[in-house]
Amino acid sequence: MTEKLSAESLDAAMALLPHWSHDAAQDRITRQFKFGDFSQAFAFMTRVALAVEKADHHPDWSNVYNKVTISLSTHDAGGISQKDIHLAKKIDALAD
Amino acid sequence: MTEKLSAESLDAAMALLPHWSHDAAQDRITRQFKFGDFSQAFAFMTRVALAVEKADHHPDWSNVYNKVTISLSTHDAGGISQKDIHLAKKIDALAD
Repeated sequence: MTEKLSAESLDAAMALLPHWSHDAAQDRITRQFKFGDFSQAFAFMTRVALAVEKADHHPDWSNVYNKVTISLSTHDAGGISQKDIHLAKKIDALAD
Repeated sequence: MTEKLSAESLDAAMALLPHWSHDAAQDRITRQFKFGDFSQAFAFMTRVALAVEKADHHPDWSNVYNKVTISLSTHDAGGISQKDIHLAKKIDALAD
C-alpha cells in the first residue's frame, strides 16, 4: 500500500519540482511540455511510456501536436504519493 | 485549404464510423479505445502516431492506462473535414 504524502511532505517535494503544479481539486500534479513538433513530442512520449511501464505507475496524459500534458496521482493512495514524485523527477530528466 | 464538411456530408460519413461520436459543441469527432493493458494501449498509440505524422494531420488525444481517447477536427477548416474522416477510418483499421 502506497501512502498519500502529508501536506508538509508534498510541499517539500514540490519545491524540488518547479515545473509541476499541484491541482488541489483533483489532488494530482501536472506539467506541460512543449517541443518543436509532433515527432519530437511523440519521441518524448515513447521514452515516458517505457519509464512508466517499468515503474508500473501510469499517468493521465494528453498530446496535441507539439504539446504533452502529464498528470500524476496514485489511485490506491487517494492522492499524491512518493511514486508520483519519483516519476515526475524521472520524466523531468527525460525532457532535459 | 481544407473545407469543413456540410451537415449532410458529415451525417453520411458518420454513418460509416459507428464507433465515433460527433461532439457538436466542439465540432470534432471522438472515439475511445480500450485495450488489455498499458503496453497494448501504447503499442496502438505508436501505430497511430506514425499514421498521423504521415497524414500530417494530428489528433487531440489522451491515455489513461488501457484507455485511449482520440478526437479529430481540422483547425484550418473550423470543424470536421474529409481529412478527419480519412484518419478516423485509418485509426479504426489499426484498432481491429
